Amino acid sequence: MIEWFDDLALGMRFKSAEKRVTREDIKRFASEFDPQPYHLDEAAAERTALKGLAASGWHTAAIAMRLAVDTRPFGPHPLLGLGVDDLRWLAPVRPGDVIRLEGEVVELTPSRTKPQGIVKVKWTAFNQHGDPVYTFTPIGVVPRRPGAAAAG
Amino acid sequence: MIEWFDDLALGMRFKSAEKRVTREDIKRFASEFDPQPYHLDEAAAERTALKGLAASGWHTAAIAMRLAVDTRPFGPHPLLGLGVDDLRWLAPVRPGDVIRLEGEVVELTPSRTKPQGIVKVKWTAFNQHGDPVYTFTPIGVVPRRPGAAAAG
Repeated sequence: MIEWFDDLALGMRFKSAEKRVTREDIKRFASEFDPQPYHLDEAAAERTALKGLAASGWHTAAIAMRLAVDTRPFGPHPLLGLGVDDLRWLAPVRPGDVIRLEGEVVELTPSRTKPQGIVKVKWTAFNQHGDPVYTFTPIGVVPRRPGAAAAG
Repeated sequence: MIEWFDDLALGMRFKSAEKRVTREDIKRFASEFDPQPYHLDEAAAERTALKGLAASGWHTAAIAMRLAVDTRPFGPHPLLGLGVDDLRWLAPVRPGDVIRLEGEVVELTPSRTKPQGIVKVKWTAFNQHGDPVYTFTPIGVVPRRPGAAAAG
């Protein structure tokens, strides 16, 4: 069971549950945070580069965060990040799409001064067809097992 | 007036309107997308590294997107991004904070094959005390002025 920074290993993988994204979800998020035609109006969206209604990229990012949180990759410790590397939107998320995440530990750096370490997990979101739609690599901070920092 | 990729210049700056973030906004966003104690419960949040209730970083990101959209840095053209570089959360966003954005064009790369260019704007969000709380550099795509690509 993963409980501390010291329990994580490079290449360790995580799989999330699934989340269905509805037309109503897409329009509600966009009307508050990203009110552009391809997220709000089917007819207008048809005439854009996305060729139809699609979720705001920030909506996809928020859904992915929820899936990652529920995956509990760091056991009892929260997902608390300094930032994100390599955030890319790879394909539109459409009404009715079912999104799931896969994650892999790609970097582990113990702090030299604090009883914690930096953990980078590269997460990729896939739709129900298996197409990657989004990827992001949050820079997380996870406590070390008490005593481990002094020993290591 | 900015209308096309060709109207943008390195160092060009943008300033957004302001947005006040309420306690209710913070809890509503977090309950849907980031249900962790420091975004949901005042007492639990006091005992975390954030020392009090704070907005989800993805909530701050979504608010910043709204402020950027309303700024219309590319005139009539939408904010449509391939991804984001250098996304960093710099300080907690608290209930009642008033957030505004400043942006600067930091990279302009015309496409060699399409009538468009890549535009990177480094945006920084500040709170009402002038402290930077968040920064992100979206990788935008903006059409070139008709005829400009062939001429350039």
